[in-house]
Order: sequence, then C-alpha cells, then structure tokens
Amino acid sequence: MPGNSYTIKPIGVIRKQDDHAFIEIYPDYTDGLLGIDQFSHINVFYWFSENDDAESRALLQVHPCGNEANPLTGVFATHSPRRPNLIASSTCKILAVEDNRIMIEDIDAFDGSPVIDIKSYFPDDIPHDQVRKPKWEGHPDDEEEE
Amino acid sequence: MPGNSYTIKPIGVIRKQDDHAFIEIYPDYTDGLLGIDQFSHINVFYWFSENDDAESRALLQVHPCGNEANPLTGVFATHSPRRPNLIASSTCKILAVEDNRIMIEDIDAFDGSPVIDIKSYFPDDIPHDQVRKPKWEGHPDDEEEE
Repeated sequence: MPGNSYTIKPIGVIRKQDDHAFIEIYPDYTDGLLGIDQFSHINVFYWFSENDDAESRALLQVHPCGNEANPLTGVFATHSPRRPNLIASSTCKILAVEDNRIMIEDIDAFDGSPVIDIKSYFPDDIPHDQVRKPKWEGHPDDEEEE
Repeated sequence: MPGNSYTIKPIGVIRKQDDHAFIEIYPDYTDGLLGIDQFSHINVFYWFSENDDAESRALLQVHPCGNEANPLTGVFATHSPRRPNLIASSTCKILAVEDNRIMIEDIDAFDGSPVIDIKSYFPDDIPHDQVRKPKWEGHPDDEEEE
C-alpha cells in the first residue's frame, strides 16, 4: 500500500494582480463551478509548487512560522509549505464569480500557484473553547511564509 | 501549465475497527508527528481511492448529497467524493497519540482510505452569520455518502 501513488492535475491557477486576487479555472473544469455563487466562502486547495523538490518533500520537522524560537515540530502538526505532499488549504471569501473566474478577498499564495481543488465552505461546529493548541510565536497564517 | 501534474504518495492509512477509528502513519513519516499531541483537533486529508477511475474524475456536476431533489451543482460547490482530484478533507478530534497512531473520535471515511496529509487545526475566524450557503436537503456531511 505505501507504494501506491496518485496523480493530481491542476484545475486552475491563482492570480494576483495589484490588490486583486482571483482563481482562474481552466476551460475543461468550468462546469464544476455551477452554483458556487450561492456560497459566501470556499476552501481552496492549491499546490506549493515552488517547493516541489525532493528535499522539501523529505522534510518532516520544522520550527513553526520559520521562527527558531519555536520548538522543532512535525510538519503534520503545522501548516508548513514544505511537507511530503505539498497540499495547501485556505478558506477564502468570494467577492464575485464571473465565467471561469472566482474573485476572492485574499489568499496567502503566490501568483501562479496551481489550484488542485475547491470545496464549498461549511462552518465547523467546534466550540472555540474546546480547541487546544500550543503557543507558538507568530500567527498560524504566517507559517506559509516560512 | 494545465499539462503539469503532481504526484501524491500516501503517508498513512485510515483504520476503522469496531467503534474505533485511527490513523496509522507509515514508518517513513512518523517523525512528522512530533508535537501533534498538543493539538485537540487535526485536519485529515485523504484520497477517495475507491473512485480513482476516469469516469469519476471526469464528473463535474452532481446532485448534492446524492439527492435528486437537490439542484444539479458543480462538484467544486460540493464535497462530492467524485471529482477531478479525489481529495477529501475532514476535521477530527484527537483522542490519543500512540507511536505512529493517532486515535480519532470519528471520520466519515472507509477503512483503508489512504491518508495524504495532516495539518494542525486552527479555528476559523469567520462569524457564522456571515456564512451564506444554499438550502440543500441532507446535511453536508452526508455528501460523502453520495
């Protein structure tokens, strides 16, 4: 089983121009957007393509948020952009949907990042006071700058 | 750009036995778990491997939750297990971490599903009254039964 591997094909690309961010869906996949305008938010999955090399994919422990003061931590306990499978996940507010473009409020990704999936956003039912997490320096969103 | 593709390798597997669910991480990746026990919840990414065929990956529109009464909807506006890239995402409560096993409260996945990534869970900052979504029949979690 560990020998299996799976193939991911980009369905689109993240574009950032000036202050604007949008997702451009490739023509073959545009039909998959039907009804997405009924949602206020989406989960965008993209690929940390700038790190798609053997060294980054072999990295298993990092100092979170790229801060050496933070304890060495397993990548699966972080959102590090260097990890075995380079999947990034971000919740985004939809501003508008125009043909094959989803205008979004913002995304912490590079212009040109390959989009590999989009899912409609449903809020979690987890009360915040039941969420436990360590005290790292730096906001978790900063990790992707690592 | 649309011609590129990326390779995903499972880092572990979801196991369900009687009433118990756990994630078994493969030995090569166990170091990536360091510190995960400091979190109450994780986001588990797995592969809808039972649908890894050309037909399922070409499907772009579905009736959400497998209910014909729901309007035909683009897969990117759903959590359908049939979609171009078969990525599943689920937030899970950690019950315990023992060596290469993460015991979780529950997961809506089949026994044997390949785990492709794990990320620590940080709550969203999105007020529930700012989340808009359509009124489908059936809880969104039911979609994966489609």
